[in-house]
Amino acid sequence: MDHEGLNASLGALSAQQTPAPKAHTIIMDSNKVVENIYLLVIVTLVSVLQNVFFAQKVERECKNHNTRTSAFERVSCANRNCMDAYPTFLAVMWCAGLCLSQAPAAFAGIIYLVVRQKYFVGYLGQTSQSTPGYLFGKRVITFLSLMCVVGIANYLLVRFYGSDYKEYVETITQAATALLLIP
Amino acid sequence: MDHEGLNASLGALSAQQTPAPKAHTIIMDSNKVVENIYLLVIVTLVSVLQNVFFAQKVERECKNHNTRTSAFERVSCANRNCMDAYPTFLAVMWCAGLCLSQAPAAFAGIIYLVVRQKYFVGYLGQTSQSTPGYLFGKRVITFLSLMCVVGIANYLLVRFYGSDYKEYVETITQAATALLLIP
Amino acid sequence: MDHEGLNASLGALSAQQTPAPKAHTIIMDSNKVVENIYLLVIVTLVSVLQNVFFAQKVERECKNHNTRTSAFERVSCANRNCMDAYPTFLAVMWCAGLCLSQAPAAFAGIIYLVVRQKYFVGYLGQTSQSTPGYLFGKRVITFLSLMCVVGIANYLLVRFYGSDYKEYVETITQAATALLLIP
Repeated sequence: MDHEGLNASLGALSAQQTPAPKAHTIIMDSNKVVENIYLLVIVTLVSVLQNVFFAQKVERECKNHNTRTSAFERVSCANRNCMDAYPTFLAVMWCAGLCLSQAPAAFAGIIYLVVRQKYFVGYLGQTSQSTPGYLFGKRVITFLSLMCVVGIANYLLVRFYGSDYKEYVETITQAATALLLIP
Repeated sequence: MDHEGLNASLGALSAQQTPAPKAHTIIMDSNKVVENIYLLVIVTLVSVLQNVFFAQKVERECKNHNTRTSAFERVSCANRNCMDAYPTFLAVMWCAGLCLSQAPAAFAGIIYLVVRQKYFVGYLGQTSQSTPGYLFGKRVITFLSLMCVVGIANYLLVRFYGSDYKEYVETITQAATALLLIP
Repeated sequence: MDHEGLNASLGALSAQQTPAPKAHTIIMDSNKVVENIYLLVIVTLVSVLQNVFFAQKVERECKNHNTRTSAFERVSCANRNCMDAYPTFLAVMWCAGLCLSQAPAAFAGIIYLVVRQKYFVGYLGQTSQSTPGYLFGKRVITFLSLMCVVGIANYLLVRFYGSDYKEYVETITQAATALLLIP
């Protein structure tokens, strides 16, 4: 290698070392963030649509009838029970998605939304003496909480013992989500 | 270029390659996170202040009067309607801010807070027979949801087709926020 | 340094420049995210457990007695007040944890949960004429809001003036959390 060649390769080296144009880096960074959360965002959007659907049911019942009828009370109560549990659900789903992996968390979220829809419709159809209970979707919330616990336990294992079981854990989690489909 | 010069430039090269001291990197990292969310955090703080303002209204009405008066029922109902919609709003605003860009999302959030304030005050002033409906701020929530959808669609386009329209989309979004100002 | 040595050192340089294997980088990235939020996630999980505990109290009261008794109304009202304030608490705690530092935010969160537990139990034990007010945990929420404000102010200082007081601020914050323990 002669000096011209050396200079050229040095030039190439420093060209590689100069950071990519800043705008591009920021776009890549932003996309990296979106990459890790886009499934969670989609589930959140679907849940927001469902909330609006519930709220419109309440709104319609509120306008059509007097506010003291049994139908209004039932739809209002069903909506309130769903709304009471909503922040809990969102918090657990996002924690599980961030701590372990987003695909199983988003899948469990979808199942929770289906359960919630069934609960709401069931609440409206029942007579007032046999309304379903206050709680619903206990299994999904438990599953998501376990995902959080496992994710944090894995992080602490990596930090203090240096052993990373994340791949195994993710595989097991993905298999375990199938259990949620059992009615 | 002689060998001393070469050595010097190599030394400079490797000096550039050594990472910055760790503490500094962490501070920069932390600031990078804050950079992407600080407008959202400010809007969240303002919304928390508003929540506290609403809650104090309820508290005062609760203490001054008997809990069965019409004024208490109205302020309590207005507060509950606002609180029911609050997690939905927070979730959509943060998703829109993370997926697309924070400035329009924060601006829409501010407009939502103004709409909510008007709704609350309007609820208190009305007679019980002409209370406003259960829903409010539909336009802002729709706008924020659309921002999420566009952000995710852009991410998927980048991932599968390699074409990035983020800059155009951000410009259009910033122009579109002006439409929210139309009463 | 002769040419062989130079080539070798150039080779070493370019070896340092090749990125680490992608899977490993992603695992490290994911763990870096978890590192910054794991205390917040733990507090969120504890709060979810507490929510479930509250909800089960409501569920049990709902099934055992008629829904019009005083005991049911009291437990239902306590639960609703706690749930109304829950999204506010979560939002402020996460903002404070992300903007400033997670350990004091998580500690304040734990104290809030203790206050909430006391509030709930106190609500059940009271006769209906001396129920505690609608608000609780004002001090913790104020503290967390101040943490957010300080974090954002520090970020803006770094951005516009280049002076970083984060270390001092974190030390002061950690000392100030002790003040929350005063009853």
